Amino acid sequence: MSAIENATSAPYTVGDHLVDRLAELGIDRVFGVPGDYSLALLDHVVAHPGVEWTGCTNELNAGYAADGYGRMRGIAALFTTYGVGELSALNAIAGSFAEHVPVVHVVGAPSRASQAARRLVHHTLGDGDFTHFAGMHAGVTCARAALTADNAAPEIDRVLTAVRDQGLPGYLLVPADVADAPVGRPSRPLPVTDDTSDPAVVAAFVDAAARLLGRVRSVLDVTVLAGLLVHRLGATRQLMTLVDAGPLPHATTLWAKSLVDESSPRFAGTYAGAGSAEQTRSAVEDAGALILAGVQFTDLNSGMFTQHIDRDRTIDLGGRSAHVGAATFSPLELPTALAALTALISELAGRETGAARSMPTPQPTLSEAPSAPSVPDEGTALSHSQLWAAVTAFLRPGDIVLADQGTAFYGVATHRLPADVTFIGQPLWASIGYTLPAMFGACTARPGRRGVLLIGDGAAQMTIQELASVIRAELPAVVIVVDNNGYAVERAIHGPTQPYNDISRWDWTVAPQLFGGSAAATPPHAVRVTTHSELQSALAAAEDQPRRLTLVQAVLPPTEVPELLTTLAQALAHANSARATELPR
Amino acid sequence: MSAIENATSAPYTVGDHLVDRLAELGIDRVFGVPGDYSLALLDHVVAHPGVEWTGCTNELNAGYAADGYGRMRGIAALFTTYGVGELSALNAIAGSFAEHVPVVHVVGAPSRASQAARRLVHHTLGDGDFTHFAGMHAGVTCARAALTADNAAPEIDRVLTAVRDQGLPGYLLVPADVADAPVGRPSRPLPVTDDTSDPAVVAAFVDAAARLLGRVRSVLDVTVLAGLLVHRLGATRQLMTLVDAGPLPHATTLWAKSLVDESSPRFAGTYAGAGSAEQTRSAVEDAGALILAGVQFTDLNSGMFTQHIDRDRTIDLGGRSAHVGAATFSPLELPTALAALTALISELAGRETGAARSMPTPQPTLSEAPSAPSVPDEGTALSHSQLWAAVTAFLRPGDIVLADQGTAFYGVATHRLPADVTFIGQPLWASIGYTLPAMFGACTARPGRRGVLLIGDGAAQMTIQELASVIRAELPAVVIVVDNNGYAVERAIHGPTQPYNDISRWDWTVAPQLFGGSAAATPPHAVRVTTHSELQSALAAAEDQPRRLTLVQAVLPPTEVPELLTTLAQALAHANSARATELPR
Repeated sequence: MSAIENATSAPYTVGDHLVDRLAELGIDRVFGVPGDYSLALLDHVVAHPGVEWTGCTNELNAGYAADGYGRMRGIAALFTTYGVGELSALNAIAGSFAEHVPVVHVVGAPSRASQAARRLVHHTLGDGDFTHFAGMHAGVTCARAALTADNAAPEIDRVLTAVRDQGLPGYLLVPADVADAPVGRPSRPLPVTDDTSDPAVVAAFVDAAARLLGRVRSVLDVTVLAGLLVHRLGATRQLMTLVDAGPLPHATTLWAKSLVDESSPRFAGTYAGAGSAEQTRSAVEDAGALILAGVQFTDLNSGMFTQHIDRDRTIDLGGRSAHVGAATFSPLELPTALAALTALISELAGRETGAARSMPTPQPTLSEAPSAPSVPDEGTALSHSQLWAAVTAFLRPGDIVLADQGTAFYGVATHRLPADVTFIGQPLWASIGYTLPAMFGACTARPGRRGVLLIGDGAAQMTIQELASVIRAELPAVVIVVDNNGYAVERAIHGPTQPYNDISRWDWTVAPQLFGGSAAATPPHAVRVTTHSELQSALAAAEDQPRRLTLVQAVLPPTEVPELLTTLAQALAHANSARATELPR
Repeated sequence: MSAIENATSAPYTVGDHLVDRLAELGIDRVFGVPGDYSLALLDHVVAHPGVEWTGCTNELNAGYAADGYGRMRGIAALFTTYGVGELSALNAIAGSFAEHVPVVHVVGAPSRASQAARRLVHHTLGDGDFTHFAGMHAGVTCARAALTADNAAPEIDRVLTAVRDQGLPGYLLVPADVADAPVGRPSRPLPVTDDTSDPAVVAAFVDAAARLLGRVRSVLDVTVLAGLLVHRLGATRQLMTLVDAGPLPHATTLWAKSLVDESSPRFAGTYAGAGSAEQTRSAVEDAGALILAGVQFTDLNSGMFTQHIDRDRTIDLGGRSAHVGAATFSPLELPTALAALTALISELAGRETGAARSMPTPQPTLSEAPSAPSVPDEGTALSHSQLWAAVTAFLRPGDIVLADQGTAFYGVATHRLPADVTFIGQPLWASIGYTLPAMFGACTARPGRRGVLLIGDGAAQMTIQELASVIRAELPAVVIVVDNNGYAVERAIHGPTQPYNDISRWDWTVAPQLFGGSAAATPPHAVRVTTHSELQSALAAAEDQPRRLTLVQAVLPPTEVPELLTTLAQALAHANSARATELPR
């Protein structure tokens, strides 16, 4: 019997069903760390022709990597072991929930026999109770199941369908013996969930929106502010059709940065309330009509709640409902609402063309941070404004840029990105260290695209070991570590000279060697820079060697931070203080 | 006004009360990672003359470090920030709960104003609900409180008292503004909880124990098997008084290794069911009467439930109840039960002395792994048996030895330790990577004692960045990294050649340089060894430089594991398989 015949005649199992379903959802790689309770399950991953096992150095990093992959591919999977593994990943899962990233968390558990006998086995609390950790996932997953041989197939399908449709994490607990339990092959794909929008609600929404839009002088007076949910609900194409129908000036929130082509002259900038460039603020807040598409205003995504949105002039599209002024329309899904508005805007624009509408020449809105500040003398110490301008100028189409929540995020957020650059940040969950493993996951999701990681030293210390995975996979990447001896954002908020904001000083340039770089086909390059000209040389060298990993240790003063962050930090300090009985709104 | 007068006249706050209470419990150092919600609270830590802030590289590591400190000092504290920080530490807290280590987890949270307004602030799920993460702690803490300015003092005292008395983790949520809220200075220390043992229960227990002990031919036929709870409930002194009263042969479980002086001739070895040395097994299982003191049999602590304990011959002392044969005595606390048994044993021993009892010459029970195996020729590749024998021979009194759950734990567990060596492992929770940060915590708890860390490469990769804290604190330590390219325990259980058990290969010898070693007053030394003689040279060099950090990368074959582990791995593979409808017992 040939190996193939043998493989074909092997019984079809719960593990096979699960991995087949993941592949069906577009997952070609799963992340995780093995444990003895999950090994049998992982055999089915390894055996699957379309799915690759991707081991990480620890479970939190694996969870971050899955999140990064999920942002690029629309869905991701994370495999951990019971207790120790799943809890280590819980921060990442909570982050995926907060930031609307569908990650399927699959946990290998003690066998049914061990559970039934309430045995005091390893990775438990020693109390015979096997429900503790699934319970901890309840608040951060949209669906959960503890599999048995009998319920496995329908329960897997139920959880995966929910994860796909709600765009949020899910949880599957797979006892070690259940992975190998035989099940029938699925006879049909996962069910497709229909658009839940009510046609009568759509019609009423269109009437209300038409009345609101009818009050503007011109379609050019309608601005679109796009938020994260457009991306997460897969409505980017519908959004672009809408803005092109005008054409309409449009901006994004910080959270949705890079959702649209920022090199377009109709791009009005990245909106962050009072923290916005004036031209961006005005385009959003002073518009005759404003369409909010999938926008959620959180503290760091709104300049600490300094947005001024006049509800009477606003059409606000959520994931499954919409508002026109004070009226609510539900159920109405975001893509459907965008399509309906597109028809209205086309009609308005067509009427105006008939009336010989004068289309003003669009002006690039470069009132954000200048992309090429004055170049200082050689030998002058590097500054934040130079660093972020140089990094932005270094980007090219196709790059995946990850900016860790801190100086890196605020340093680059005010810069306009080239077309086809993907920007990944985490302004709601804001877990520092996230972006390093997330870059690993995001780059494996889009082979060939270069990763550009912008991260502070305190953040990079949290998750640095995942650089070994980047090196092992020989991914093209540029890592900029901002070496300013500590938690700079926190210094800006409180305790600038307190010891709790200090960290140990590292020689980052040897990191690639520790993590196996010497054995790589194209060994990584690491360099420490302290001046603008050294930085430029390092970036030029990285440009010359696009296939290798470059790590730049960029030394900056401990107490300097980007301008946008200074403003935010003062507001954060106020919000955390006893004086904050009323927050600004 | 002088600085001191100024400090004295500053209002006494919730933060001050908390840190004063921690100091009262013997805590001189708190671990953690700062976050903007916890900075004001940390000001009170930094300001306290008796407590030192000890920042770690990430929260999981900080949790492990706190656990290591707690094992040495009886209690520990961990400070993290809301959401991202506390969830990253949750695996460590769960481990502390499973392994009975009292760690106070203090979490800085958004201000009361933000919570009351249900603001969508960073580190939340964006749903205005601030109860999610405290809820996740419910199963892994013995007491919890969300502080307000009004309830803070009594709630802090309630939670800390529970943590101290139950020997388990607790949770305190401190909104950012509450840390600075004024409270009155406490007028008295934390309440002392009386022994809850019922005198009538004690008397009945003594009667039953006397009858059981009366059946043995001689006091020498009574064995004590001591478990973890003796240590955790602070009853080590009472245990030693009991075994000296006989004197009685005594063993410990794996989980309680180093609880007693293993160099004593009356030490019968480390018991692990069928995995025990025969002399140890016999001393425990064939004893005329067996006293179990604080023993909990879990899978990895019992040779996969292969203990054979005859209940009719056993007095089993738990934390708050005891069993004599089939009878239960409750409430009866462990120290009280030990003291009662001591009186009985003294009486028996006195009677036997009067009857000219012949005391046999005690024989060292060295049927465990030989401490000095035959030395191979120079150039022969290093083996597990050589490694663990050489490491054990290298230990000296005062050392704190940490063996990560895996080859390191099972490699060293069968060896007899010198007197006054503390052994730290985690055989129930079994979270790999734990021991590296735990060593940092344990060594800061006992300044001057040398840390000896035994850890596999897969485990060390999980938490390696905490080596930076060891280097920053200039702690004397020897780190042995077993470099065998992967998860060796898992290879032994399942999938010996499967890719999920492979890891990236590191050049461990540059780790100290990355983590700031070059700047240390006594720079660390790192060396890679592949033979027995290279290992001996490395250990000799470490002995010559006791104040510096030595890292030894010990290369071993990927599929070789210690003998005890081979047996356990087979049983684990069985327990995880579909065949395991009945587990051996």
